[in-house]
Amino acid sequence: MTSFKVRVLPFSVDQMIATLKSEEAAKIGVDEGERVRVTYEERSSLALASTPTDGVQSGTVLLSKKVADSLGATDGVNVDVVYSPPPLSVQAIRSAVQGRPLSKEMSYAIVNDVVAGSLSDAEMSAFIVSQAYRTVSMDEVENLTKAMADSGQKLDFGRTVYDKHSIGGVPGNKVSLLIVPIIAAAGLLIPKTSSRSITSPSGTADTMEVLAPVDLDPTEFKRAALKAGGAIVWGGRLGLAPADDIFIKRVEHPLSLDPASQLLASVMSKKLAVGANYLVVDLPLGLGTKLETEDMVRDLATRFIELGRRLGIYVTCGTTYGSQPVGHAVGSALEAKEALEALGGMGPTSLIEKSTSLAGLLLEASGLAGRGLGKEMAIKILQTGKALKKMRGIIEAQGGNPNVKPGDIAVGSQRAKIESPADGYVVEVSNSAINSIAKAAGSPVDKGAGVLLHAKVGYSVKKGDPLLEIFSEHPTKLSESLDLAQRLKPMTVEGMLLGRLPEVL
Amino acid sequence: MTSFKVRVLPFSVDQMIATLKSEEAAKIGVDEGERVRVTYEERSSLALASTPTDGVQSGTVLLSKKVADSLGATDGVNVDVVYSPPPLSVQAIRSAVQGRPLSKEMSYAIVNDVVAGSLSDAEMSAFIVSQAYRTVSMDEVENLTKAMADSGQKLDFGRTVYDKHSIGGVPGNKVSLLIVPIIAAAGLLIPKTSSRSITSPSGTADTMEVLAPVDLDPTEFKRAALKAGGAIVWGGRLGLAPADDIFIKRVEHPLSLDPASQLLASVMSKKLAVGANYLVVDLPLGLGTKLETEDMVRDLATRFIELGRRLGIYVTCGTTYGSQPVGHAVGSALEAKEALEALGGMGPTSLIEKSTSLAGLLLEASGLAGRGLGKEMAIKILQTGKALKKMRGIIEAQGGNPNVKPGDIAVGSQRAKIESPADGYVVEVSNSAINSIAKAAGSPVDKGAGVLLHAKVGYSVKKGDPLLEIFSEHPTKLSESLDLAQRLKPMTVEGMLLGRLPEVL
Repeated sequence: MTSFKVRVLPFSVDQMIATLKSEEAAKIGVDEGERVRVTYEERSSLALASTPTDGVQSGTVLLSKKVADSLGATDGVNVDVVYSPPPLSVQAIRSAVQGRPLSKEMSYAIVNDVVAGSLSDAEMSAFIVSQAYRTVSMDEVENLTKAMADSGQKLDFGRTVYDKHSIGGVPGNKVSLLIVPIIAAAGLLIPKTSSRSITSPSGTADTMEVLAPVDLDPTEFKRAALKAGGAIVWGGRLGLAPADDIFIKRVEHPLSLDPASQLLASVMSKKLAVGANYLVVDLPLGLGTKLETEDMVRDLATRFIELGRRLGIYVTCGTTYGSQPVGHAVGSALEAKEALEALGGMGPTSLIEKSTSLAGLLLEASGLAGRGLGKEMAIKILQTGKALKKMRGIIEAQGGNPNVKPGDIAVGSQRAKIESPADGYVVEVSNSAINSIAKAAGSPVDKGAGVLLHAKVGYSVKKGDPLLEIFSEHPTKLSESLDLAQRLKPMTVEGMLLGRLPEVL
Repeated sequence: MTSFKVRVLPFSVDQMIATLKSEEAAKIGVDEGERVRVTYEERSSLALASTPTDGVQSGTVLLSKKVADSLGATDGVNVDVVYSPPPLSVQAIRSAVQGRPLSKEMSYAIVNDVVAGSLSDAEMSAFIVSQAYRTVSMDEVENLTKAMADSGQKLDFGRTVYDKHSIGGVPGNKVSLLIVPIIAAAGLLIPKTSSRSITSPSGTADTMEVLAPVDLDPTEFKRAALKAGGAIVWGGRLGLAPADDIFIKRVEHPLSLDPASQLLASVMSKKLAVGANYLVVDLPLGLGTKLETEDMVRDLATRFIELGRRLGIYVTCGTTYGSQPVGHAVGSALEAKEALEALGGMGPTSLIEKSTSLAGLLLEASGLAGRGLGKEMAIKILQTGKALKKMRGIIEAQGGNPNVKPGDIAVGSQRAKIESPADGYVVEVSNSAINSIAKAAGSPVDKGAGVLLHAKVGYSVKKGDPLLEIFSEHPTKLSESLDLAQRLKPMTVEGMLLGRLPEVL
């Protein structure tokens, strides 16, 4: 037992960390990244050891707030610090990295330690990367999903719950803003939780936020959803499957990595926690999406359905065309505006088609529509204005202005157009280029920033016709975005010059 | 451009880190784990963004010392902080994680950013784990090795350099303390750098430190090696291939992970940096070592030889029996004592055999001994006392006492014996159990701690005969180690009861 005086780290960090001078750590046999057990009076906690060579006073241990709080320790108290061997979670990660399957106990150990903040970034990263490489059985995915759902809050709406998820990767995918009111207008309960943008210009939560608050706690969410029959909120304050959020924040987002087994567990743990009974999954297929071949789609769909069966969630998957943006608008305000227009009967075909097709699958699953007749029912709900009316109810229940009109929505005042360099047909729109241009214009931080497509694949354009328009809230961001658009060539018009060789004459 | 007031983090961390309040990070479009460019006057640096929700004052950026030093910034100055896209190194890691090969440029980018401290633990971990899974070509290993060697100091002894490396995993492997003086006594230059213990009870540097200082800087190392014809020093102050040390510290050691391609690059980058021309590699084969099958040995040996050819280093590999400790002593002082006894002609057969066999391969490579005659020459150098005399010269050149005798070496005064529970033959000695027992006794922190084996595989023992003896410097550590020894059963005597069922009657 070695006693140290506590100093609490002044800023919050996500993990349980105890920082000791390296010489003193060596004396208790602890190296950087290993564990120590810190004991204060009757309580003890595990923490990751950080062992800098200087800057920590002898006899002092610097504790992150998570550790201090778990112990009830404050600045100046004395704690005992001893070496602690790798916990089961770390043994499990090492084992997974060697390619061995994880037992149920191991999956729970990993997930619980992630939530407790007692796994290092290096360990979490090793786990996620190993999931990308090794063959992960459905038993393992099931255990991991349950462990993640059990790691947080679980909701019970006391009714059958319908839900929708898109695995993402396509810009402008505001279909939830149509699907949720269509399903709710049919009398079904659809309490949809969404993420904010991770890599895209606008997540569903960012887009919905233009129309109503999305930052609801579990009680507010439940009340709003039950009142209106549907809701579209940000998942961040609900505490559903928090392990998933930590993996995303600390590993998957920084590394742009989303292995299939992890994607399945991530989506389904949230759905399990929200109490979903019926789920439609949107699987966009195409160049630049997460699923580039039909085999990939089929494989993932099979696993979604099987995992749903194991969890008691009826899953139906819809494959959609994902090689170009959905609709014409990309960026929070532009997308909210387009969704509202579509609910009012003035939307682009691709958006209406996709939304009603996916909504139709849920209507069929519910039994309200016969097999093959769901889409028709969805279109009818949309065309008769019932979906728009329901959307206004949802906006109101979440605390927004139910009378909002598309024209009320402020979009960026700084604008620039990219024109077609030639006559011809648009043969390609690059999702990744559109994403980059919208983000350079200020998305998702600036709600009014984004891109409006004036043409899409198959459009006939003349030289000088506008291909797309950039919206921004700041002149400098507009010009950066415009520079990028000129470099990235987000649209290809057949016949246009793609480059010249040599580049400089 | 957003301006922040600097506070420098009071303790050293290995990485370039800029900590901003999460709301303020969001405003400049930066998430946890992404990069920012920090600019102070004429200088700018990339740093990893850390974005806690509280504890950082508005308008303040907390910089790790590495960032502050690179900018010449101090507490209270103002810097500009902007988002910076993922550098080539991160793109390269993402690509490797997807299973794609790394170009030379990518390998250099990763290694340079590791040394600069601008890769996160999650990124480094993803890289190392990907190296364990994907097929890494020899071209890639060559590039990585060169990049790691180029990342640090390179030594030039102005003479042909001989060297030895063991890939480790076997306790008690003090063969370098025999091989180096044998080779040096033959008139060849062998400046050996070693590591301290990573997972074993004693690294070669820890063991040599019992006899002489090992903590030499490059100038001292060169002078000592050239004076005595050989040296055995710790690599930690030499700055050879520092990227390798960082990978080990931050990922491979915490995760107990050492992929073959990384092992090759790690060993050979150090050898390239030290200017080795001829190298013998010890590949211990057996249960509980890194190489459990002959196929694994052959495969690794082939890659070592090929990598050597590409780097201009003549490599010869020796496979040795690794299923039990080498010699009888495990732990720094006990091993140093055993090595000194062996140099004086009183060593255990396994130690003498292994050391002279490996030394023989180097003598043959040098041309001093004919093919198949190297071992004989090595034995002669040992038996005539030339190796011991040379070892005294090496000890002296490094600043130790050249007249040290085995009896002068202090070993732990707290001792306990484990006795054989039955008559019979020893059929198994567990490397991992011996390691754990020695570490529980205090190794490698307490030099006098360790284990002395009184029996090894094939020994005939009677019930009550001592199997092994634990040495410790502290009564509590002795009793912990003894408890562990009783639990782990480090030696199996054929016929002894291994357990009873049911465990409790």
